[in-house]
Amino acid sequence: MNKVIDFQTDPSRYRHWRVEYDGPVANLFMDVDEDAGLFDGYQLKLNSYDLGVDIELADVVQRMRFEHPEVKVVVLQSAKDRVFCAGANIRMLGGAAHSHKVNFCKFTNETRNTYEAAEADSGQKYIAAVKGACAGGGYELALACNHIMLTDDSTSSVALPEVPLLAVLPGTGGLTRVTDKRRVRRDRADIFCSTEEGVKGKRAVEWRLVDEVVANSKFDATVQERAREFADASAKPDVAAGIGLGPLTKAVDADGSLTYSLVEVAVDRGNRRATITLHGPETDAPADMTAFQAEGDQAYMLRLARELDDAILHLRLNEMEAGLLVFRTQGDAEKLAAHEAVLEGEADHWLANEVRQYWKRILKRIDVTSRSMVALVEHGSCFSGVLAELLFAVDRSYMMEDEFEGDNRPTAAITLNGANFGPYPMANGLTRLQTRFLGEPGQVDVLRDRQNEALEADSADELGLVTMILDDIDWDDEIRIFMEERASFSPDAMTGMEANLRFAGPETMETRIFGRLTAWQNWIFNRPNAVGADGALQSYGTGVRGRYNMERV
Amino acid sequence: MNKVIDFQTDPSRYRHWRVEYDGPVANLFMDVDEDAGLFDGYQLKLNSYDLGVDIELADVVQRMRFEHPEVKVVVLQSAKDRVFCAGANIRMLGGAAHSHKVNFCKFTNETRNTYEAAEADSGQKYIAAVKGACAGGGYELALACNHIMLTDDSTSSVALPEVPLLAVLPGTGGLTRVTDKRRVRRDRADIFCSTEEGVKGKRAVEWRLVDEVVANSKFDATVQERAREFADASAKPDVAAGIGLGPLTKAVDADGSLTYSLVEVAVDRGNRRATITLHGPETDAPADMTAFQAEGDQAYMLRLARELDDAILHLRLNEMEAGLLVFRTQGDAEKLAAHEAVLEGEADHWLANEVRQYWKRILKRIDVTSRSMVALVEHGSCFSGVLAELLFAVDRSYMMEDEFEGDNRPTAAITLNGANFGPYPMANGLTRLQTRFLGEPGQVDVLRDRQNEALEADSADELGLVTMILDDIDWDDEIRIFMEERASFSPDAMTGMEANLRFAGPETMETRIFGRLTAWQNWIFNRPNAVGADGALQSYGTGVRGRYNMERV
Repeated sequence: MNKVIDFQTDPSRYRHWRVEYDGPVANLFMDVDEDAGLFDGYQLKLNSYDLGVDIELADVVQRMRFEHPEVKVVVLQSAKDRVFCAGANIRMLGGAAHSHKVNFCKFTNETRNTYEAAEADSGQKYIAAVKGACAGGGYELALACNHIMLTDDSTSSVALPEVPLLAVLPGTGGLTRVTDKRRVRRDRADIFCSTEEGVKGKRAVEWRLVDEVVANSKFDATVQERAREFADASAKPDVAAGIGLGPLTKAVDADGSLTYSLVEVAVDRGNRRATITLHGPETDAPADMTAFQAEGDQAYMLRLARELDDAILHLRLNEMEAGLLVFRTQGDAEKLAAHEAVLEGEADHWLANEVRQYWKRILKRIDVTSRSMVALVEHGSCFSGVLAELLFAVDRSYMMEDEFEGDNRPTAAITLNGANFGPYPMANGLTRLQTRFLGEPGQVDVLRDRQNEALEADSADELGLVTMILDDIDWDDEIRIFMEERASFSPDAMTGMEANLRFAGPETMETRIFGRLTAWQNWIFNRPNAVGADGALQSYGTGVRGRYNMERV
Repeated sequence: MNKVIDFQTDPSRYRHWRVEYDGPVANLFMDVDEDAGLFDGYQLKLNSYDLGVDIELADVVQRMRFEHPEVKVVVLQSAKDRVFCAGANIRMLGGAAHSHKVNFCKFTNETRNTYEAAEADSGQKYIAAVKGACAGGGYELALACNHIMLTDDSTSSVALPEVPLLAVLPGTGGLTRVTDKRRVRRDRADIFCSTEEGVKGKRAVEWRLVDEVVANSKFDATVQERAREFADASAKPDVAAGIGLGPLTKAVDADGSLTYSLVEVAVDRGNRRATITLHGPETDAPADMTAFQAEGDQAYMLRLARELDDAILHLRLNEMEAGLLVFRTQGDAEKLAAHEAVLEGEADHWLANEVRQYWKRILKRIDVTSRSMVALVEHGSCFSGVLAELLFAVDRSYMMEDEFEGDNRPTAAITLNGANFGPYPMANGLTRLQTRFLGEPGQVDVLRDRQNEALEADSADELGLVTMILDDIDWDDEIRIFMEERASFSPDAMTGMEANLRFAGPETMETRIFGRLTAWQNWIFNRPNAVGADGALQSYGTGVRGRYNMERV
């Protein structure tokens, strides 16, 4: 699986999904082209999916928010007969490297979380209209919807057959959503998750696995009726027109480096790191959100977001040995603040909201990226507001102190603003500053009083905003030593350590999915009982059941 | 590692620990005998530990509560020069099977949790008095104490060097307690956890890693002074005398079956299951806690607890293929209720409290036991109160309905009482009934009104207390099919599934340790970078660093 995976797509290129827009209701059809897998060696039968199918779904969900703000209800359904979705493709999983499996699950989880939150964040409610078999990842697609409708016929059921059939877990939040979202009684959950054939009809409602079961003859009509009802009841304001999301300006070099319009990614494979530089705005901020909307996808705050998001995804899947991500910024912090201020000033404007919600998702994506991450606060940088959040997302930060010889750039400073005190919570429900100062909660109040102040090294250090400040004499050596050391550690130990240190404080369904559930799944993805030559994933479809080592660990 | 591991010990047999009792203060010395490892092939140098060392520590902690209720403060310290504790023995870990590593960490975690909670549960506060190197599991021993004192000399430091040195995680709660108990700022935690040499002196206090640093010359005196202060400030009532914990009545058969005085464990290796039968009391309940205390370790509720606890531990470590634990009870439910009522009626009595706290720990131990668990509510059973908690701890329960041919035992019934509504919370902070009915919280109130009522199959089913009720015609077949099916599944998938389904609702530091942290550690314990021939655990001490696959997963 050495081809470069591209996360950019658009409706004209979709092979697996189609949307029919109908005023406030969008009918989203899953219609997987079995011959259009991302890799060779498997067919995507029965609406089963691989990463390519999910990249399109993520694109659908994203465009729904920006291009179709008129949509209030999305009906997720199958365009195929007798099957809703059979889940992740087993042959694909059987042939995929451990790292691909893990990254595949992470991305699909992020996509599920995105549309699950669309109702709360943007007023777009998702209905899963389930007709036919809905198994494994298929049921997980439905579980992430806000409302699940199941038709009542002899073949339609919901199921999580991974454990009995494949000796792995439902990897896209299934177990967690069963216990914590659907709140299924746990002995019923135990039966459900260890029964290949799943549950159908009234029992599916009684066990809280779906919200309603509808007679087959009335199903389609009832689904559309329910969609209209939800749309009518929606508090989402009417928006006449969205903005188009055009293709990104992006070039990939042979050495893996990426150049976008505002983001550069320098990949240093020999030293196993990638340096991501974000450039501040060159143009003045739009006067208001009307002007912002006129700029559309070229508006600085949105363009930067899209480029950064794509860069992170590109690195995750295509540069597996880049174990350290280095974040830099360069630009005019005041100008940046002006761009942010437009969003904050009209936070209720639908597009301002979407851009901020998108930044929230990108920052969360960074939080769960299993690479060591560091930020360098250099002279000339613009770590202000939402970009300052990067400092609290990374594992460590280093900041330049005093003058550096021959460096005429403005002195390094950090500027906090409203962005750092609410709109971009982590998956644990706290802001990054609240998480950072869990041991000294009063410090968040101290910082709130220092908003809009350019905090140079001494102040930033004293206020606990950076890990270390370094002057001209120490900077190069300290940074080099840190990077060399980090690159020498076991990547697995780093992944485990960071997954534990980054999420102090409360847990939520989201943190449990990326913490408890994912970690257990990754463990199983390493065990011979699942992935060995005689394991269940290899044996699937051969008629022979996997042979298991029966020791309990 | 095929020898039978025995969890029973007593001070006369200790090789690694010693306690000096001094009124309300107990000085607990770690003095590991390097030649007394539980297995061959390693020496326990520098106060490093293996499971044998931890079995003794667990015994110390347990006896402190029952035999020495006069103790209000325990000072955990090293009897060796220049080293507090070097953590888990690396050669032991390097040579141990995956399953042993995992079970070793689970047991050590349970022991840490037990003394960490001793202050809140019983008024016994633990001080870690750290002199000399305190690394890895050594620092984790200290982290679980309520107060950490570090001497200020050139060699004493606290450290979690696992990640840089061994490519594994601190496996006994270290990362979680650093972020969630000590609430160390996460970039500092990142530095701390990736620095072999650790942190000492004032920085250790500033970074919240220890509570106080004391000049070396004054250290011993200050520690004893602090212990006296805490003892003086303790709200724990004075208790004149404890009760002795004598040896258990226990026989082990060649086929692995166990016979205690009140507990029988039938091991069926061919079918990979163990059936645990708990017998109700034959004698009448003591009149009050004074009479209970006179019965001492022979009092029914304590004797049953000790036997059940030992049985669970025995099965975990010695019967690794017994993937299904079947819980049965037989006995007089009313008589059992009378025994429980003595504890509930004088819940403030120190011994009643200790017995109930012990049941709380045992039930939690069952919750985190990575075996499938089922309870059979048969005729003649006594699932009442604390034993009914077993029904809500297991993954499924089956209950006999109506008459069974030739069965003259009293009709199967379940009786709830106060035990089911508060004193035995799970690690998530909720009662098992609250967790069970997370989706229908009102049901807990309904059940509260049905206390002390013998609920037969129909009622139990209707109230949601059991998974399934079965009559004479279906019982044998259904149970057999369930057991065969369960025994055929991949043990790894079962472990992962159950670890996710059992802990719905809120997460706590404790659930995070057994969920997120343990799962990531287990993943790493399977990765070649840690455990392969060139991995860090094998390379340790050879002077050659582990060779790592540098791909990030």
